[in-house]
Amino acid sequence: MIDAQATRTFTDPRIEMAHGAGGKASRRLVEGLFAPLFGDPLPLALTDAAPLEIDGIRLALTADGFVVRPLRFPGGSIGELAVNGTVNDLAVSGARPLALLATFVIEAGTASQVVEDEARAMAAAAARAGVRVVGGDTKVVEHGKADGLYITTAGVGRVDARVRVDAASVRPGDRVLLSGPIGDHGVTVMLARGAIELEAAICSDTRSVWPLVEALVDAAAPGLRWMRDPTRGGVATALNELAREARVGIAIHEELIPVRDPVRGACELLGLDPLHIANEGQFLAVVAPDMADAALDAVRRAPGGEAAALVGDVREDSRGMVLAVAAYGTSRVVDMLVGDPLPRIC
Amino acid sequence: MIDAQATRTFTDPRIEMAHGAGGKASRRLVEGLFAPLFGDPLPLALTDAAPLEIDGIRLALTADGFVVRPLRFPGGSIGELAVNGTVNDLAVSGARPLALLATFVIEAGTASQVVEDEARAMAAAAARAGVRVVGGDTKVVEHGKADGLYITTAGVGRVDARVRVDAASVRPGDRVLLSGPIGDHGVTVMLARGAIELEAAICSDTRSVWPLVEALVDAAAPGLRWMRDPTRGGVATALNELAREARVGIAIHEELIPVRDPVRGACELLGLDPLHIANEGQFLAVVAPDMADAALDAVRRAPGGEAAALVGDVREDSRGMVLAVAAYGTSRVVDMLVGDPLPRIC
Repeated sequence: MIDAQATRTFTDPRIEMAHGAGGKASRRLVEGLFAPLFGDPLPLALTDAAPLEIDGIRLALTADGFVVRPLRFPGGSIGELAVNGTVNDLAVSGARPLALLATFVIEAGTASQVVEDEARAMAAAAARAGVRVVGGDTKVVEHGKADGLYITTAGVGRVDARVRVDAASVRPGDRVLLSGPIGDHGVTVMLARGAIELEAAICSDTRSVWPLVEALVDAAAPGLRWMRDPTRGGVATALNELAREARVGIAIHEELIPVRDPVRGACELLGLDPLHIANEGQFLAVVAPDMADAALDAVRRAPGGEAAALVGDVREDSRGMVLAVAAYGTSRVVDMLVGDPLPRIC
Repeated sequence: MIDAQATRTFTDPRIEMAHGAGGKASRRLVEGLFAPLFGDPLPLALTDAAPLEIDGIRLALTADGFVVRPLRFPGGSIGELAVNGTVNDLAVSGARPLALLATFVIEAGTASQVVEDEARAMAAAAARAGVRVVGGDTKVVEHGKADGLYITTAGVGRVDARVRVDAASVRPGDRVLLSGPIGDHGVTVMLARGAIELEAAICSDTRSVWPLVEALVDAAAPGLRWMRDPTRGGVATALNELAREARVGIAIHEELIPVRDPVRGACELLGLDPLHIANEGQFLAVVAPDMADAALDAVRRAPGGEAAALVGDVREDSRGMVLAVAAYGTSRVVDMLVGDPLPRIC
């Protein structure tokens, strides 16, 4: 599987912001450069966690870099994201988070209080998520060589024995479940940067989704086909990746997708689609039709899952595409994120 | 164990280069800030890997950040270090490396060829070490916000059932084994930066030490007390940490420690002690006296272990200290690394 002589198909001459944005350019980089070198299946940024089986025990492994600006924003901070983002990658692989590793790259001259604040935020988020930070590393680079603080978190989880999630198992007729309102995180960070003048009572949705996933698994594991947390690139990118991988069409009903007013307003001002905005505390699931109601009911009963909704379905036609169907029946193609309209969102 | 309200004892107002250098300042940061928040035992930069037991299977987890400058140097590159460094942290925990995760933080504008070169170096090093890169993440920051490329690698290994390494098991009379010549990596990087004018045929020692560790475990597992790879801070820092943790004295015999001439020459020019210079392909072990010869023999027979030596012993006196004994009988105290004479060595 490993082929150090593999030829890349990635031909962009330079790395640009879009290559880290989680959309089309990220996919080209990973599929065209990393995957041929490291061997398939490679989850680098494309799926959420890698499977590792040891003596019949199914583990999930994941790692995420965090470079969000500013470091703190309403509802969260880089440290909190660094825990929840990794916990959620494990959760949507059906894995209960067991342990995290945290690596800090710090710019020399950074106030120690900044590092303490983020370590404290990580410890608190880890306690809430029921996981421990068991190790890591600290590196320091010269003043001016980084902007403050980057955190990389790796996580190990144990896959629930009842879970078998795989894009290949998704089939026409399946339903798409969304855990709650979208776009809160991305718009919050954008407002915190002063990108637009808008007074909005909105904050990041950063949280562990494991309790919601666990409720879903308890209620509907046999019908659970696929899960993903729609972070960079948003719901649109996550569903496009599924449509492509599973070779199905996906129709979502725009009026069923919960979007808070400030998010909708900010997106209209900026010409962005809420479906492309990053979330840090939501997940998407595809569930067999006969278990969809039970799945929705279970997520809605779990604390924080009250706004969950069945927002779409899997179709035989329009394979490889995501269609957004409006209330009055017209539909539009929803593409993956292109470019990087919201850099360094996580 | 987790206490988000814990009080830090770390009082340095700002993070400086020395806090990432692996010596005294790193220890203060980890013990005074991270450990109280994340709970003990915490291996952040202090020990090599964290233990995680699942249904009787003993795993080791580790993560390391790599920020070396320049990215490429004689004998290696950041990508190769990023694999071998993490593999070695697992190896000295007695764990066979199973899987790695690689996270890239890339400066926008970096030539794609640079990223390809490092991904290729990682794939080749992983193949040599018998481990796979199974996932990771890519983030991009604006031009000028990082200097090229940082890589964080996390690794999971399975601890060999025969291995029980623990500083607490080290006792007077035990012998100290060193796998080969020291200082090659640090001096190579220093020369590659043009820090001093010296023509020297020397290259980094970066490699996986797992084959050497495995040979040692096969030959002397019941007598194997402790292992460590002396990276940042060098042999002096690793042994000082052991002396402190195990509450023993350690005497090393300077004339028995292999040091290549160019390393000795560079250290003399710069006023550095080879014992403080970073290594990326060596390890230290403490072995019970009755198994020391068998241990040495096994490592020497393994390819790349020919220069291994028994370089010291554990003593009842001078507890918490490392003494270097010269051939003519005098001795000097060898302290941990203080400050950061060789920044960004890995």
